[in-house]
Amino acid sequence: MKLWDKGYSVNKLIEDFTVGKDRELDLYLAPFDVLGSMAHGTMLSEINLLPKDELALLLSELKAIYALIQKGEFQIEEGVEDVHSQVETMLTRKLGDIGKKIHSGRSRNDQVLLDLKLFARHEIREVVVLGEQLFQTLLKQADKYKDVLMPGYTHLQVAMPSSFGLWFSAYAESLADDFLLLHAAYRIANQNPLGSAAGYGSSFPLDRQMTTDLLGFEQMNYNVVYAQMGRGKMEKIVGFALSSIAATLSKLAYDVCLFMSQNFGFVSLPDELTTGSSIMPHKKNPDVFELLRSHCNKIQAMPTEIMLMVNNLPSGYFRDLQIVKEVFLPSFQDLKNCLEIANFALTEIAVKENILNDERYKYVYSVEDVNRLVIDGVPFRDAYKKVGLEIQAGNYNPSREIKHTHEGSLGNLCLPEIDAKMKAILAQFNFKKVDDSIAKLLK
Amino acid sequence: MKLWDKGYSVNKLIEDFTVGKDRELDLYLAPFDVLGSMAHGTMLSEINLLPKDELALLLSELKAIYALIQKGEFQIEEGVEDVHSQVETMLTRKLGDIGKKIHSGRSRNDQVLLDLKLFARHEIREVVVLGEQLFQTLLKQADKYKDVLMPGYTHLQVAMPSSFGLWFSAYAESLADDFLLLHAAYRIANQNPLGSAAGYGSSFPLDRQMTTDLLGFEQMNYNVVYAQMGRGKMEKIVGFALSSIAATLSKLAYDVCLFMSQNFGFVSLPDELTTGSSIMPHKKNPDVFELLRSHCNKIQAMPTEIMLMVNNLPSGYFRDLQIVKEVFLPSFQDLKNCLEIANFALTEIAVKENILNDERYKYVYSVEDVNRLVIDGVPFRDAYKKVGLEIQAGNYNPSREIKHTHEGSLGNLCLPEIDAKMKAILAQFNFKKVDDSIAKLLK
Amino acid sequence: MKLWDKGYSVNKLIEDFTVGKDRELDLYLAPFDVLGSMAHGTMLSEINLLPKDELALLLSELKAIYALIQKGEFQIEEGVEDVHSQVETMLTRKLGDIGKKIHSGRSRNDQVLLDLKLFARHEIREVVVLGEQLFQTLLKQADKYKDVLMPGYTHLQVAMPSSFGLWFSAYAESLADDFLLLHAAYRIANQNPLGSAAGYGSSFPLDRQMTTDLLGFEQMNYNVVYAQMGRGKMEKIVGFALSSIAATLSKLAYDVCLFMSQNFGFVSLPDELTTGSSIMPHKKNPDVFELLRSHCNKIQAMPTEIMLMVNNLPSGYFRDLQIVKEVFLPSFQDLKNCLEIANFALTEIAVKENILNDERYKYVYSVEDVNRLVIDGVPFRDAYKKVGLEIQAGNYNPSREIKHTHEGSLGNLCLPEIDAKMKAILAQFNFKKVDDSIAKLLK
Amino acid sequence: MKLWDKGYSVNKLIEDFTVGKDRELDLYLAPFDVLGSMAHGTMLSEINLLPKDELALLLSELKAIYALIQKGEFQIEEGVEDVHSQVETMLTRKLGDIGKKIHSGRSRNDQVLLDLKLFARHEIREVVVLGEQLFQTLLKQADKYKDVLMPGYTHLQVAMPSSFGLWFSAYAESLADDFLLLHAAYRIANQNPLGSAAGYGSSFPLDRQMTTDLLGFEQMNYNVVYAQMGRGKMEKIVGFALSSIAATLSKLAYDVCLFMSQNFGFVSLPDELTTGSSIMPHKKNPDVFELLRSHCNKIQAMPTEIMLMVNNLPSGYFRDLQIVKEVFLPSFQDLKNCLEIANFALTEIAVKENILNDERYKYVYSVEDVNRLVIDGVPFRDAYKKVGLEIQAGNYNPSREIKHTHEGSLGNLCLPEIDAKMKAILAQFNFKKVDDSIAKLLK
Repeated sequence: MKLWDKGYSVNKLIEDFTVGKDRELDLYLAPFDVLGSMAHGTMLSEINLLPKDELALLLSELKAIYALIQKGEFQIEEGVEDVHSQVETMLTRKLGDIGKKIHSGRSRNDQVLLDLKLFARHEIREVVVLGEQLFQTLLKQADKYKDVLMPGYTHLQVAMPSSFGLWFSAYAESLADDFLLLHAAYRIANQNPLGSAAGYGSSFPLDRQMTTDLLGFEQMNYNVVYAQMGRGKMEKIVGFALSSIAATLSKLAYDVCLFMSQNFGFVSLPDELTTGSSIMPHKKNPDVFELLRSHCNKIQAMPTEIMLMVNNLPSGYFRDLQIVKEVFLPSFQDLKNCLEIANFALTEIAVKENILNDERYKYVYSVEDVNRLVIDGVPFRDAYKKVGLEIQAGNYNPSREIKHTHEGSLGNLCLPEIDAKMKAILAQFNFKKVDDSIAKLLK
Repeated sequence: MKLWDKGYSVNKLIEDFTVGKDRELDLYLAPFDVLGSMAHGTMLSEINLLPKDELALLLSELKAIYALIQKGEFQIEEGVEDVHSQVETMLTRKLGDIGKKIHSGRSRNDQVLLDLKLFARHEIREVVVLGEQLFQTLLKQADKYKDVLMPGYTHLQVAMPSSFGLWFSAYAESLADDFLLLHAAYRIANQNPLGSAAGYGSSFPLDRQMTTDLLGFEQMNYNVVYAQMGRGKMEKIVGFALSSIAATLSKLAYDVCLFMSQNFGFVSLPDELTTGSSIMPHKKNPDVFELLRSHCNKIQAMPTEIMLMVNNLPSGYFRDLQIVKEVFLPSFQDLKNCLEIANFALTEIAVKENILNDERYKYVYSVEDVNRLVIDGVPFRDAYKKVGLEIQAGNYNPSREIKHTHEGSLGNLCLPEIDAKMKAILAQFNFKKVDDSIAKLLK
Repeated sequence: MKLWDKGYSVNKLIEDFTVGKDRELDLYLAPFDVLGSMAHGTMLSEINLLPKDELALLLSELKAIYALIQKGEFQIEEGVEDVHSQVETMLTRKLGDIGKKIHSGRSRNDQVLLDLKLFARHEIREVVVLGEQLFQTLLKQADKYKDVLMPGYTHLQVAMPSSFGLWFSAYAESLADDFLLLHAAYRIANQNPLGSAAGYGSSFPLDRQMTTDLLGFEQMNYNVVYAQMGRGKMEKIVGFALSSIAATLSKLAYDVCLFMSQNFGFVSLPDELTTGSSIMPHKKNPDVFELLRSHCNKIQAMPTEIMLMVNNLPSGYFRDLQIVKEVFLPSFQDLKNCLEIANFALTEIAVKENILNDERYKYVYSVEDVNRLVIDGVPFRDAYKKVGLEIQAGNYNPSREIKHTHEGSLGNLCLPEIDAKMKAILAQFNFKKVDDSIAKLLK
Repeated sequence: MKLWDKGYSVNKLIEDFTVGKDRELDLYLAPFDVLGSMAHGTMLSEINLLPKDELALLLSELKAIYALIQKGEFQIEEGVEDVHSQVETMLTRKLGDIGKKIHSGRSRNDQVLLDLKLFARHEIREVVVLGEQLFQTLLKQADKYKDVLMPGYTHLQVAMPSSFGLWFSAYAESLADDFLLLHAAYRIANQNPLGSAAGYGSSFPLDRQMTTDLLGFEQMNYNVVYAQMGRGKMEKIVGFALSSIAATLSKLAYDVCLFMSQNFGFVSLPDELTTGSSIMPHKKNPDVFELLRSHCNKIQAMPTEIMLMVNNLPSGYFRDLQIVKEVFLPSFQDLKNCLEIANFALTEIAVKENILNDERYKYVYSVEDVNRLVIDGVPFRDAYKKVGLEIQAGNYNPSREIKHTHEGSLGNLCLPEIDAKMKAILAQFNFKKVDDSIAKLLK
């Protein structure tokens, strides 16, 4: 059997399979594991399961580890299977048996649950920051190009007048709706599971409200069975929210790729943002936007991946959940890269003026002309017929006047209203509460 | 070619293909189409595109159609392709040309968008009502059986003591988190797209804030390009929320199916809720819960279905969106059936007492006994070793005493806190605003 | 509780939920249910569990029911829950207790398994027939338009010369690969599960090889536990194959929608295959291709839907499988409609000549010109530089000569080879064996 | 903007984003890139685009690189973006301008297409080898335990007698069907795309049949536009096949996890294959099978991931395809690990004897007893009633005799037939042809 060919001992094979990618993936969780231990230890001390002096030693050591992580110098040593073991190893190396006391009234299950929630809370915030930068860039470009017209399409057929102002700010408003979803995901993540232990609580008199407060959570996952059930579920729901943002970026990228085609030529990028071809000297390809689209489409598949892993499992912990980390943890960095690149590339993009002068777009004015006749008193049916006959006869000459005034139309973009919509959502995140709590814990 | 074999004329083939299932599916949208027309007409009159007397006639006729729909007597006639045409046909039949004026400043695109949003808003509310009934049933059962113990499992291995109180209320709290997501979906749906026309607005001076108010929307989709972009997106996001509720039900159903197996025997159903076998006289199968699970698993696939249809389409309307209706519209009824059945079946379920007396579960007490020694002063390591050795030697006798006191544990279920969590979410839906607006529109 | 509001009795509620859509969906299975019963009865008689004279009566009655189904006059009566019960009801109505004997040594589980496999086998064949018609249409159009050039794109950027010959036949060859997958799905479906009973076989001395032969199966699902495990699995794998064909159609439809845009204008459809707009007199929209694309994208989601329903179920039958029918059974008709419409529309499509004369496409010749220099002895690097400088300087004049000769290039489409590839796959289906068996059974 | 905070120059940001994970992922493709270049060069020489002596130098150098790769010493250097560039860099370093000539008549597009197909072909074969080992283990265990009975379940309710013989060999036969699908995927992968260049062929007189033969392909992708279209499609279809094998393993793992629960206790693993708990001394958890299940469920999501990336792209190359590699390339190693671990763990698994002696399973005999009465002449209805009444009255005593004789039942497992089924599929892969070609190329 091939197993033996590799010179693996059985234990090695099994160990490699069960440890999997934890040693690299758990680095994402390291700072949060330390914060969780600080809160847990503080609480243990309050309920008299840990002497005050031992707590002081533990907190001091945990802060040192936290500093190491911030400096990028923390690593999971060879032979240590995950971040939880690494931190415990470091504590006991320094403090001996005191280091092990931190684990009383806690299980690996609620520890990793806690890490995942703190991680998600932190990463969502980073997505919010980058997403808002992109939102502002979109509004800025919308304002800058609010008078540059372009054809609007339905069925990819030339339809009615649109503008770059409309186009840029459409994606801004899209992000605002995505953030509504992201906020719901944030609230689901921002609940304390610590104290649920292996999923059935503890006979120690834990003070779960205290750790909830120390870590700045909005509230707790009360029911310990549900707290455990939240694993996989939280990741999936956060995945829905990331997927929604990704869908907005993907559509935006699709538009750009289309508009950069010679058949449209609506926008262009500086040369350093395009790629050439080794055999075709004339090529300037929008690879950046294609990769943006593809990364974002991959992110959209994440909820399905998680579903397939966690669906049809009964209640209670299963090791299956470990593999969810492979999908969930790196997804934020993927999305953050996309937000950054989109923000940068959209700042650099150039739009073409006078597009509608091209004869092929003249029919975009047909509705305008019909409506103008209607406002002048001609019955709609007659107006429609008149313009239609002109088009068929080939002697339609558009007046090329556009006057759209209602909310959200090309003459009235409502950018401040869209900005206000976003700001109202952002305010609900209340990141300050988290900041204050973490600062207090670390001081 | 087979086409001709069927005696179809070309037009018939194309027509059948393009109409598709609209004639049956659009019935879901009928009441909302009428409400939308009432609001739109009222606004047209305010901006002087429709004389007051004609508006009065239109509103009166629309109310009559609405009443017909409520009585279940509305149908889409042979040869009429969708609900929008059917309503217009009925109006012009009665009012002649006045009936056609309702369509000024509106396109089929924003009309169906509006219908879908009003429909989703209405159906989400029904899900909320049924979901809350189930939530209350779960809390009630949790309270009733809070002292009935059962083994808690990790890895499907007997682990620690749990209780039916914990089990029932875990699913209640799960629904509360699902409702956070549902509320975000509701807010995304509850925005007015009317006035976006074909996706590029109108040169008529529409008053979009007015229709927003008349229809009780929280706010509007300002940007007209984004309003159109919301088609497919709204359905997908609502799909995320339905999928999340479905996942809770599916997991609950899985537990019940497992617990009804002779190998567990934790719960049972009255005979009329089980099915027998034509060849095995002893069978009492939990078909109801299996079907519940499967329906809910199907609902979980809805977001992927919608993604595959709408992903990688550039901005602007496409006819592709019609097929999203096939998936989206019936999904609410599916989920509502599941909520109703779950509520009913969980009211009828019987739980077994004294499960833990079975010898195979005695090890669930091992952690309790270790912890008790720790609290009595024995170092954890020694306590763990002592109990471990007893187990290995086969002379472990659990004390069978359990004292869990912390929040969310089996001695302290926090049912009022979980109830309060749900009530806080429910309050945010603010259905009253919608009720008042619709009532005013119909009065 | 709302349940009672509806005036439902408990049984009615449960019954409606468990019967679900079976009464309508099972009509798809009716002819196959009858054929299966004929084979099973014949076998029972051979192993002396059914007297010859009773078999004769049963076969005669079953043939009558089969004829009824073929005439479209069969239906599942009110109060009868599925097709199996309906057939049995009809048999016992005519033959009394003899009608019930057909069920010996058979369970509802292997009966529906058998029906599904016979159904899938039949429908795959219909897909093959329609798919091959489309394949031939594509080859025909490729041949007809082999000299009409169009620009080839990479990154949606104008790249190199292509042709309608290449474009049409690319999709033909794509179908050939799809059929390789479809053939594997066919072989997986074309195995006899009858005799597996409830999933654990029977103590009757069934002759499973006999029913395998009578029904024209290639072989049998030997292991009875696996036979049952094949439910859901077979549907998913057939779903993979349908999904693959759907992906080919979807991509083709996407190209057509793009090429019909005024920004391309490469193809056009007769007016009766396009739709107009009620407000824009100039619109001719490719709704047919958009709907084709969307239907096909929905079909691509089917495997995920089935996965979510059947994944993470242990071995053995579960009622969950009933809901798979809702997804699986109608999918064939959806795909067949798409194949028919695609075939029809591609016969009617018109292609534009002389596209490459448009200045914006002149750079498609740049590689040709570089290569020509290379063949004339200029080193590649110098040739590339020369043409590149001409392009930059704005004085590039393409020679507009194209000479592609290798296999599969625009000068050598290899249509006979592609046709031979498809024919080799078609030959492997060996439908004749099935035909002969069914004819013999029904004679 | 955060971009600058990081001290990245624009180019660095864009470059990192576009290179992505190619530098590590492309290592999977390295040996195949070299083989492809050897075949391409040989062909170029035959059509007189490369002098014989230069070819000799190139082949010699390529063989040296191939040897380096086989020794694990090949790497992609800092600043080199992918494997294609790395190989070309190494060639030109040694051979100067001769090294660049290898790229005539080839584009990066068909080069990576070729690499992916050769890679997939190679990896599928490794999956076949490991899959067949598992298949044989399953058959061996089935034979070994063919007389050890266990209860068979439907609805997870005790139903009828089954056996470990049936259980093990069910999964063997499942793999045989999976291999039918894998073979179709293999045939789709095993077609030569080389010569399609950027997707529109070449004006050089390439001899594509020659490279097809040199690389041992079954045939070629004729149409050059289709060859390019095969990117993403091939990966998805191979993904279907891997997903099918993964589904078999996942179900098997689910059964094992269930059967290891104390509530079943049907199978057990040696201690070194289980994991304990830091707080519960009694735990022996089946983590290995849970991880197996989860990995396999993740693999099942791969087709959806790929679909979301490639769906709704028109024809022609897009950079989006690069990200498909992130999903596709590592998936084989994941599945191969799972096959190896499953094979190992199933060799070590112990089954429990005399399970059916437990009173709770006695009803599995009820159908046997009914059938026995039927064979003895009692009408089925009376027999069913008699046994049913005994069960209800609590005095049912099963005779505990089982005699199943038909094909695939517990008394007649048909293991040789199942083995023959698998062997017939394996024979169709015809790996020898590939071996011979590659050996000849490398000699």
